Amino acid sequence: MRSPTGNFLIAQGGGPTAVINASVAGAVLEAFDRLDASSQVWGAKGGITGLLNETFIGLRQQPNGIWDGIRVAPGAALGSCRKKLTEEDVACAVALCRKHDIRYFFYVGGNDSMDTANMLSKAAQASGYEMLVAGVPKTIDNDLAETDFCPGYGSAARFYAQAMIDLGMDIRSLPTPICLMEVMGRNAGWLTAATMLARRAPDDAPHLIYVPEVRLSREKFLADVKEVYDRQGWVVIAISEGMCDEKGESLSLPTGKVSADGFGHRMVGDVAPALARLIMGELGLRARNEKPGLIARASSHHVSPVDREVAEGVGRFAAQRVFAGETDFMAAIRRESDPPFRVSYFPVPLEKVANAERLLPAEYVADGGNDIAESFREYAEPLVGGELRRYARLRW
Amino acid sequence: MRSPTGNFLIAQGGGPTAVINASVAGAVLEAFDRLDASSQVWGAKGGITGLLNETFIGLRQQPNGIWDGIRVAPGAALGSCRKKLTEEDVACAVALCRKHDIRYFFYVGGNDSMDTANMLSKAAQASGYEMLVAGVPKTIDNDLAETDFCPGYGSAARFYAQAMIDLGMDIRSLPTPICLMEVMGRNAGWLTAATMLARRAPDDAPHLIYVPEVRLSREKFLADVKEVYDRQGWVVIAISEGMCDEKGESLSLPTGKVSADGFGHRMVGDVAPALARLIMGELGLRARNEKPGLIARASSHHVSPVDREVAEGVGRFAAQRVFAGETDFMAAIRRESDPPFRVSYFPVPLEKVANAERLLPAEYVADGGNDIAESFREYAEPLVGGELRRYARLRW
Repeated sequence: MRSPTGNFLIAQGGGPTAVINASVAGAVLEAFDRLDASSQVWGAKGGITGLLNETFIGLRQQPNGIWDGIRVAPGAALGSCRKKLTEEDVACAVALCRKHDIRYFFYVGGNDSMDTANMLSKAAQASGYEMLVAGVPKTIDNDLAETDFCPGYGSAARFYAQAMIDLGMDIRSLPTPICLMEVMGRNAGWLTAATMLARRAPDDAPHLIYVPEVRLSREKFLADVKEVYDRQGWVVIAISEGMCDEKGESLSLPTGKVSADGFGHRMVGDVAPALARLIMGELGLRARNEKPGLIARASSHHVSPVDREVAEGVGRFAAQRVFAGETDFMAAIRRESDPPFRVSYFPVPLEKVANAERLLPAEYVADGGNDIAESFREYAEPLVGGELRRYARLRW
Repeated sequence: MRSPTGNFLIAQGGGPTAVINASVAGAVLEAFDRLDASSQVWGAKGGITGLLNETFIGLRQQPNGIWDGIRVAPGAALGSCRKKLTEEDVACAVALCRKHDIRYFFYVGGNDSMDTANMLSKAAQASGYEMLVAGVPKTIDNDLAETDFCPGYGSAARFYAQAMIDLGMDIRSLPTPICLMEVMGRNAGWLTAATMLARRAPDDAPHLIYVPEVRLSREKFLADVKEVYDRQGWVVIAISEGMCDEKGESLSLPTGKVSADGFGHRMVGDVAPALARLIMGELGLRARNEKPGLIARASSHHVSPVDREVAEGVGRFAAQRVFAGETDFMAAIRRESDPPFRVSYFPVPLEKVANAERLLPAEYVADGGNDIAESFREYAEPLVGGELRRYARLRW
C-alpha cells in the first residue's frame, strides 16, 4: 500500500446539487485526517478547468469550522464547469498534476465528469505518472450507471414531490383547469417520476406524468389532457424538460442559435410553456405552466436528510479507498435494507460509468405512457428522506 | 348595536396565498366565539359562485382541531373563483342571502373581490336587506390601496428572495452566464422588487431587476445585460411576468386564443423564456430561465411568521368590527413601529379599495429603471419575517 503523501486535488463538474458540497466535505475531511501536514489539500476552481488554469483553492487554509457551513450550501463550493477535454487538454492536465505533485485526484460529478476522470487517469498511467483517481457520483438526474441512486437525486425529488403537493392544493381550489409543471432531466425521467410521491388520494395531483423515455405525440397528449379534464374538471401535469415527440424532436420552444452546452448536449427546457400554448390553442382551455428550474436543486429547504448523509458518506468512502491505494473507480451505492433504510458503498470501474446513462426502466412507466407505476414508490420514497408535508382540507 | 344573530358566510376570491386560510381561520374562530349556536357559520364553496350556486360548507360541522391544520394549508380552503358579477348576479346573490338569512358576509380577496363585496352590500342596502359586509385583504401582489401591505405578500416575497439567494449560489458556481427568474405580478412590481432582499455583497444576485411599472425596450434590456456580463461574466435577472415594452405590449410569448381571465385581465407570464431567447439570439450567450410560478405562493416552507400572524389578525379584526355593527369596510393594516415591528388594524371604506391598484412607488425604482433602490429594504424586510438563509462560501 502506498503511504498517503503527495498533494490532493478535488474538483466538481457539471450542474450542482443540493448536497454536492457534502460529498466534497466528506472527501476533504477524510484527507485532512489521513494526509500528513506537508501535503496540500486543494480544490480546483471551476472543475477541471481549475486544473488546466492552475487555479487551486487552498482547503487547509480555510477558516475553522467552515465545512459545517459548506456541506449545507447550495451551488458547487469549488465552482464547476462543463468542459469536454481534448487530447491536448488531457496531456496538459497530466503535466500539471506532475508539476504540482498531485497524487490524489477526485472528481465529483456525473457521467461526463467520470469520463474526464477516466481519461485523466489513463493518460497519467500511460505517461508513467503515479496518481490515484476516484469519481464521486453526483447528479439530480439519477442517471449514473452501476449505483442504486445518485446523491443529489433524493433532495431534488423531494423538492418536486413537495412542490407538486403544494401546487395541487392551489390548483384544486381554483377554477384554473390546467397546470403543467416542468421537471428537470434531459433524457432520464427519474425526477419527473418522483412527482408521483405527491399522490395519496386518486384525485391528487399529478394526474398525468410524462417522462422522456417515452416519446409523446401532440395528439396523444391533447387526448390525455381532454380525457382527465372531462372526467374531473382539472388537470395537473408533470412533464420532463427533455420530452420529445414521436419523431424524436424536442417538444420545447425553439432556442435559436445557442443550442448546446460544452459537451454538445442539446439545450432542453421550456416544454411546459410550449404545451400550455398547445392546450390553449387546440382545446381552448386556460393552461398555466410552472418551471422551478434550478431552484429545485438549489433549495436548501428541501434537502433530504438521507441524501445528505449518503452524499457525505460516498465522499468519505472514495477517499478511504484511495488512501488504501485503490484507483480508477467511482464510489457507488448499494441499498442493503429497507426498512430500516441502509446503504453500503462499493467501487465500480470508472470506465463502466463514463458516459453511460441509466434511464428510467420501462417497468416504472404505467401502461399508456402517461403515468408512473405504483411500484416506483418503493424505490423513490426512502430517498426523499421522510414524510412530505401534507395538509388539512375542509370536508365539503 | 345589532345583536350577533343570523347566519355567517365567508368566501375566498382570486388566487390563494400561503396565508389566506389563516385569515379565514381568524374570522371564523371569532364567529364561533361571538355568534349564538343557532347561527350557521358557512363557507361559500368556490368564492362568490358558492353563494350563487348555494353550495355552502358547514364550518361548525368540521372535525375538532381542523383549524390548526387549515390555517397553515396552501390553496384556498373554501375554494376560490375569478368571477365578475353581472347586475343580475348581484340581484340573485342578495336574494339568496335573504333566503338563507345571511346577515354577515366576508370576502377574503384582492381588489376584484372588494369590488364584488361592495356591489353586494350596496345592492342589499338598496333592497332593504340588512347584512353586514366586510372585506379581508389578501394578495401576493401587494397592490391593494389604503393598507401598508397585504397579507400573503410577505410570504411570497420571502419565497422569491430566498429562491434568488439559492439560485445565485448555483449560477455563481457555474459557467452558465445568464439566468432570468420570472416573478409574479401583472401590473405591480412589489414581488419582483423583493428579490433585492437577496443581496448583501455588491456582486450578489440579482444584478438586474425589472418591474412592470417601468416599460422596457428590448434594446435597453440587451444593453443592460451586456454591460453586466462584460463587467462580471455572469448575470442573474429578476423580471416581472407583467413586463411590457415601450409601446405597452407584453414582452411575453404570445398566448394565442385564450388570453384573459374572468375579470378580463390579460394573461401574463412566460416573459423570461421570451427574453432568454432574445439574449441567445442577439448576444449569442446561453441564457436559462426559471419560473417558480404558483409554487411561490403555495410553498409552506417559506411562510413568513409575521405574514401569517397578520393574516389571522386582520381576519379576526374584520369579524370583531362586523359583530360591533360596522359594515362596508376592508380591514387595513397600519405599521405602528419598527423595530419592534408592530401593526394595528383599521377599517377603510370598501369603495376606496374596490378596483383600485397600488403600484410600486417610483421612489423605489433605481435610476435607470433596471434595479430597486436600497430604501425598499426598510419597507419589505420586516414583512418577510426574519432572516433568510445565507450560506458559507470558501475563500478563493
